[in-house]
Amino acid sequence: MELLRQAIRERAVVRPGDVLKVDSFLNHQIDIDLLGEVGREFYQRFKSRGITKVLTIEASGIAIAVATAQYFDVPVVFAKKHQTKNLDGELLSAPVTSFTHGRTYDVTVEKKFLPPEDTVLIVDDFLAKGSALSGLCDIVERAGAKVGGIGIVIEKGFDVGGGLIRARGYDVQSLARIKSMNEGRIVFDDAE
Amino acid sequence: MELLRQAIRERAVVRPGDVLKVDSFLNHQIDIDLLGEVGREFYQRFKSRGITKVLTIEASGIAIAVATAQYFDVPVVFAKKHQTKNLDGELLSAPVTSFTHGRTYDVTVEKKFLPPEDTVLIVDDFLAKGSALSGLCDIVERAGAKVGGIGIVIEKGFDVGGGLIRARGYDVQSLARIKSMNEGRIVFDDAE
Repeated sequence: MELLRQAIRERAVVRPGDVLKVDSFLNHQIDIDLLGEVGREFYQRFKSRGITKVLTIEASGIAIAVATAQYFDVPVVFAKKHQTKNLDGELLSAPVTSFTHGRTYDVTVEKKFLPPEDTVLIVDDFLAKGSALSGLCDIVERAGAKVGGIGIVIEKGFDVGGGLIRARGYDVQSLARIKSMNEGRIVFDDAE
Repeated sequence: MELLRQAIRERAVVRPGDVLKVDSFLNHQIDIDLLGEVGREFYQRFKSRGITKVLTIEASGIAIAVATAQYFDVPVVFAKKHQTKNLDGELLSAPVTSFTHGRTYDVTVEKKFLPPEDTVLIVDDFLAKGSALSGLCDIVERAGAKVGGIGIVIEKGFDVGGGLIRARGYDVQSLARIKSMNEGRIVFDDAE
C-alpha cells in the first residue's frame, strides 16, 4: 500500500532496538485519511471471506478496526488488556507478552461477543513477535468461531511473528512489510 | 439522540453502584452503524467551531474519536493511560482517578501533537465524575490550545462531572443524559 509506505518513509522514526515509532500518524496521533484508506484496503482484500465481525486488541487497534468494520458493516469487538469490574459473563482469555513493555498480561473477550457462527477478521497495527495476534487467534479458536483472515498495518518481516502465525495456517496480509531497518534506513519487502 | 437512547433502553444493563454496562454496543463490542451516527451527530453540533483536532482518551474513546474525526476530516489524538517506552519528547500529563478501577493514574499526550493553534473537540464515551474529562481539559489548556467543545455519548446527569466541567465554562454536549437509573429503570433527561 503505497500511501502507507510513504507515511512510514516520511513520518516514522526508527529508534534503537528495532523500535519503529509511528505515533505521528497511527498510534498516538491518527491520520484520519490514511486510516480510512487502511480500512478500505482491508475490505478489498478480505471482502470475499464472509466476515461477520472485526476483532482487535486495545488500544491502537481500535481505530483500525473501526475504519475497517465500517466497510464491512459488521460490529467491532476489542479484546481488553486490563481486567475491569465491568467485565462479567463467561470470559475467553489468552496470555500475551509485550516486548515493548516487558510484561505478560491476559487479553480477554466476553464469550457472548464471539459466537461460534462468527467469521472473524482480526486486525492490528503491528506484527512483530506475534504474541498479541497469537492470543487473539487462540481466543477465536476457543470460541469455536472461524478466523476469516488477519490484516496487519505494519509487519516487521525480519521478526518471527509473521512466520509463526502463517505456520498455523492463517492468511496474514500486511499492508507494509519491513524487511530491515538497520541504522534507521527502512527497507520494505517488495512482496507486499 | 433517539437511536442512542433506544440502544441504551434495549441493550444496556444496569448493575449495582450506578454501573451502566453498554459493552454490547459501545465499549467492548461496538455497533458500527450507531457509532457512525454518533460521529455524524457530533459533527452537526460542533461543525461551526473551527475544530482542527479530536482528542480522546484510550481505549473506548478511540472508536468515538475516529467516527467523529472522519466527518471533520481532522486528526485524532488519544491520550495514553499507561506510560510506554514509546512516548518521548515533551509530555503533557494530568492525574485522573478511575472510580471503576479504584486508582489514580496519569493521562499523557505528547506536546507536539497539541500545538497552540489547535481548536480541539474532546470526545468520550461516558461522563460521570468528570475526572478523565477534567484531565483532558487541563492538558489542552496547558498546551495553550483551545477547547472548541466537548462531546459525550452518555452523561450520568445525576453525577457531579457535568456540572464541574460546565462550571469551567466549557460547552459539554451529551447525546444521552441519564437523570436516574434507580432499581434498573433508566430515565433520560428530556433536556437533551
